[in-house]
Amino acid sequence: MAPVSSSALDPDIAARLKHDPAGLVAAVIQQHDTGEVLMVGWMDDEALHRTLTSGRVTFWSRSRGEYWRKGDTSGHVQHVKSVALDCDGDALLVRVDQVGAACHTGARTCFFTDLGAVTA
Amino acid sequence: MAPVSSSALDPDIAARLKHDPAGLVAAVIQQHDTGEVLMVGWMDDEALHRTLTSGRVTFWSRSRGEYWRKGDTSGHVQHVKSVALDCDGDALLVRVDQVGAACHTGARTCFFTDLGAVTA
Repeated sequence: MAPVSSSALDPDIAARLKHDPAGLVAAVIQQHDTGEVLMVGWMDDEALHRTLTSGRVTFWSRSRGEYWRKGDTSGHVQHVKSVALDCDGDALLVRVDQVGAACHTGARTCFFTDLGAVTA
Repeated sequence: MAPVSSSALDPDIAARLKHDPAGLVAAVIQQHDTGEVLMVGWMDDEALHRTLTSGRVTFWSRSRGEYWRKGDTSGHVQHVKSVALDCDGDALLVRVDQVGAACHTGARTCFFTDLGAVTA
């Protein structure tokens, strides 16, 4: 299933989005008070609309092909604190209050695999 | 120009990446000490290899179709502090020390457009 082609998203916001070929933008989820980056998900216009208007983060699941309101199954709800768009319209920064673990593995953040970079 | 199909990236790391149809993964760039999310860019295997081994962040520019080592033109270098992969292999968290502005507009961060979310 593909994302829906029309949504209730404010047309002024929709016009500023630069979607990928699948109609999606990347959404970075950050814990609002600690600054921890928890995960990256994907949103089409309808998922962004729901996120902006409901107080809860909704993604488009690329693997399952469906909308996914974070926490409906796990209880690990993301309460929205703010949503910002980047300068070229292809990424969102969603600041949230994360209940429990953001990652489906049970880890607080999905970014737990260090790749051993040479640092500067 | 498309990203290169082979690179010097560690094959064990390459095997863990889940690329989009263009061969890319999203890279979230975060200021290491303040936690500020600065920008999102895109990396193919070669851009990630260069980022992991050189101490400087390199992206694949989707709009220009070329590698882009941040700061070579602007002076706004990103010094790598750590690189982590997420649980499903399609996003990277790169913690950096950002020199000057991350955004081409001159703003410190690219995420300066608040979308007026209803908060919870």
